[in-house]
Amino acid sequence: MSFSEKNIKKDKSSKSLPGAVNPNAAQQFLRKKKKNRSVEDFVKGIIKGDRMILSQAITLVESTRSSDQSKAQQIIEACLPHSGNSIRIGITGIPGVGKSTFIEALGKYVISQKRKVAVLAIDPSSSVTKGSILGDKTRMNDLSLEKNAFIRPSPAGTSLGGVARKTRETILLCEAAGFETIFVETVGVGQSETAVHSMVDFFLLLLVPGAGDELQGIKRGIVEMADILAVNKADGDQIAAAKNARREYRNALHLMPLKESEIQPKVLTCSAIEQTGIDEIWKLLLENQKLTKKNHFFDKKRKEQSLFWLHEQIGNGLKDFFYKNEKVKKRLEEIEKEVLEGKRNSFSAADELLNMFLDKK
Amino acid sequence: MSFSEKNIKKDKSSKSLPGAVNPNAAQQFLRKKKKNRSVEDFVKGIIKGDRMILSQAITLVESTRSSDQSKAQQIIEACLPHSGNSIRIGITGIPGVGKSTFIEALGKYVISQKRKVAVLAIDPSSSVTKGSILGDKTRMNDLSLEKNAFIRPSPAGTSLGGVARKTRETILLCEAAGFETIFVETVGVGQSETAVHSMVDFFLLLLVPGAGDELQGIKRGIVEMADILAVNKADGDQIAAAKNARREYRNALHLMPLKESEIQPKVLTCSAIEQTGIDEIWKLLLENQKLTKKNHFFDKKRKEQSLFWLHEQIGNGLKDFFYKNEKVKKRLEEIEKEVLEGKRNSFSAADELLNMFLDKK
Repeated sequence: MSFSEKNIKKDKSSKSLPGAVNPNAAQQFLRKKKKNRSVEDFVKGIIKGDRMILSQAITLVESTRSSDQSKAQQIIEACLPHSGNSIRIGITGIPGVGKSTFIEALGKYVISQKRKVAVLAIDPSSSVTKGSILGDKTRMNDLSLEKNAFIRPSPAGTSLGGVARKTRETILLCEAAGFETIFVETVGVGQSETAVHSMVDFFLLLLVPGAGDELQGIKRGIVEMADILAVNKADGDQIAAAKNARREYRNALHLMPLKESEIQPKVLTCSAIEQTGIDEIWKLLLENQKLTKKNHFFDKKRKEQSLFWLHEQIGNGLKDFFYKNEKVKKRLEEIEKEVLEGKRNSFSAADELLNMFLDKK
Repeated sequence: MSFSEKNIKKDKSSKSLPGAVNPNAAQQFLRKKKKNRSVEDFVKGIIKGDRMILSQAITLVESTRSSDQSKAQQIIEACLPHSGNSIRIGITGIPGVGKSTFIEALGKYVISQKRKVAVLAIDPSSSVTKGSILGDKTRMNDLSLEKNAFIRPSPAGTSLGGVARKTRETILLCEAAGFETIFVETVGVGQSETAVHSMVDFFLLLLVPGAGDELQGIKRGIVEMADILAVNKADGDQIAAAKNARREYRNALHLMPLKESEIQPKVLTCSAIEQTGIDEIWKLLLENQKLTKKNHFFDKKRKEQSLFWLHEQIGNGLKDFFYKNEKVKKRLEEIEKEVLEGKRNSFSAADELLNMFLDKK
C-alpha cells in the first residue's frame, strides 16, 4: 500500500464526522479524481447537495493553480443561478467570548428548524497561526456530526482580499448545495469584520458580561455594524452581570442613528453552554430578514455588495499584476531606496513606476 | 476695469491678513504670473520663505492640469533636500470641540517660541461642504495676522487619496519655506485620520469635558493613535468636569499596550480661550520628539510613511488609469449590469475587465 493510499484510507475513516470535511482529505481525494471530474459533474454534484463534491469544488476555489482557478470560476458561474436564496450571518467576537460553542448551539438549533447550515470563516492570519479559527475541528464536534451541517475552516492566505474572495465564492457554492443558512465567523479584532460585513446580510456581535467594550477590545465601528449584540455566558453566577452588560449596551445603542436597513439593533443575553436564549436570537434574525425584505434593503445591500467586490477585485487585481511585473520589481527596489534616502518624493516616484508599467504592457 | 482685474485688486486688499493666503487670490495671481515664473524661480522664492510664491506653488500642486502638475513635481523634487527638518503634528477632534481656537492658541504660543507655523488641513468632504475646516479664515483671525504663520485650507477633492497627496506635498513645500512646525487639522469623524496619521510625527486628540467617547463619536482607533489627549474648555464652571474627563481617559489609556514609539500617551487639560495649558502641551510635544529622535522611532516612522505613500499612490494611480480607460468604461457598464442581475460572479467579472485592460495597454 502506497503512502497516498494510506492517507486516502485514513481520510475515509474520518467520515464518521460528516459535517467536518477535512481539507487535506479533500485535497488527496481531489488529486485522484479531479482530472476525471468535469465542470458539469461538479455542478451536478453540488446542486444535488453532495458535500464531498462541494468540498472538492471549494478546494479548487482555494487553489492557487491557474487551471484549478479556471475550473473553479466555471463551476461558480454555473452555480450562480442556484445561489443567493439564503440568509448570510456574520458572527464576531474576541477570542474567549465562546464563538465556537455559540455557533455550535445556534447551528444545532437552526438544523432543528429543518434548515441546512454552512459555517465558514475569515481569518487572514490563519496561515500564520495555522487556523486559529475553525481550524480545530474538535471545537464543533457536535455540529460536525450533523449531516445538515457543512463546516469549513478559513482559507489560508496572507492578504485579506484573497481570503475574503475565497470565502465569498465559497458562500455561493454552499448556497447552490442547499445550505441556505450561512454563518461566517471572524475574529473580531482586525479589519476582517469589514470584509465579512460586505458579504453577509446581518451581523451578530458576541460579547461577554463583566467587561466594557474598552476591555473587550472591540472597535466602535464593529458595534455600529452589528444588528444583534448577544451577551453570552448568561449562566450560573454570571446572569446578573450579563443583564447588567445588556442594559449598558442598550443605553449605548440608543445614541446611535437609525440604520438605513431600519433595523433597530437589539441586545440579547444567551448561554451557548446551557443553550438558552439561542431560539430568541434566531427568531430575531428571521425578523430582521423579514423587515429588510419588505423594505427592499435586503436585495439592495446584496447588490451593493456584488458591486463592492467587483471593484475590490479590480483594485487588488491591478496591484497583483503591477507587483508581479519583472521590470516593476527591479525598478521598485531602486526607487524605494531613493525614497528612503529622501532623494525622491513618494508620489512622483510612484508616477514613474506607473508610467513604466502602463507603457510597457 | 475688467472683472478679473477687479478681483485681483480685491485680493491685494486682503493682504492685511498676511497669514491667510486666499487661494482664489493666489489662483488669480498665478494665472497672470505663472507663465513667467520658472521652476527655479519658484524654488528660490520658496527657500527664501516668500509666502506668496509658496502659496502659488501649492496652487500648482492642487491643480488638476497636467502642465501644472509636471511643474509642481519639479518644484517638489528641488525642495526635497530643504524639507523634513520639522515637527509635524496632526490635530483632530469632532466639530464643536474648539479645534480652530485651539490651533490658534497653540500656533501663537509656538510663534512666541521663535518658530514658524504652517496650518494645513485634510477634509475630503470640503469640496461638498465648501471647506468645512479652515475654509472660514475669520476663525483664525489672530493667527493669520502673524507673519510667521501660513494657513491653507484643505485642498478640494472627492477622493481622500487625492486630498491626502496634495496635503502631504504641501507639507514638503512649507518645510522648504522654513515653516518647521506643521499642524495638520482633520475633522475626527471619518477615515481622514488614518491619512493624517500617515503624514505626521505626532497626533493630538482634542476632547471636551462632560462627554464620554461614546458621545463624542470618536472611534477607538483614533484614541489609540493619539500621543496626546487634550481636554479643552477647562475653564469657568467646566474645570471640574474637565479634570473628571482627564481622569477617565487616563484610566482608559492604562489598558492600552505600550506603543512602538515608546511614547506613553498623556492626557492634559487646557483652555484655548483662556490660553491655559497650551505651553504644557507644546512642552510635551517637544519631549515626544526628543524621545523618538533618541530611540530612532522618529526617522523610522518617516521612512515608513514615505514608503506607505509610494504604495498608496501606486494603488490609486492604477485605479485612475483603469477607470479612465475608454474600453473599460464601456464594458464596465455592461458588466455591472450583469453582476447586479446575478448573471456574473463579481470576481470573474473583475478578472475579465482586468485582462482586457492589461492586454490592450
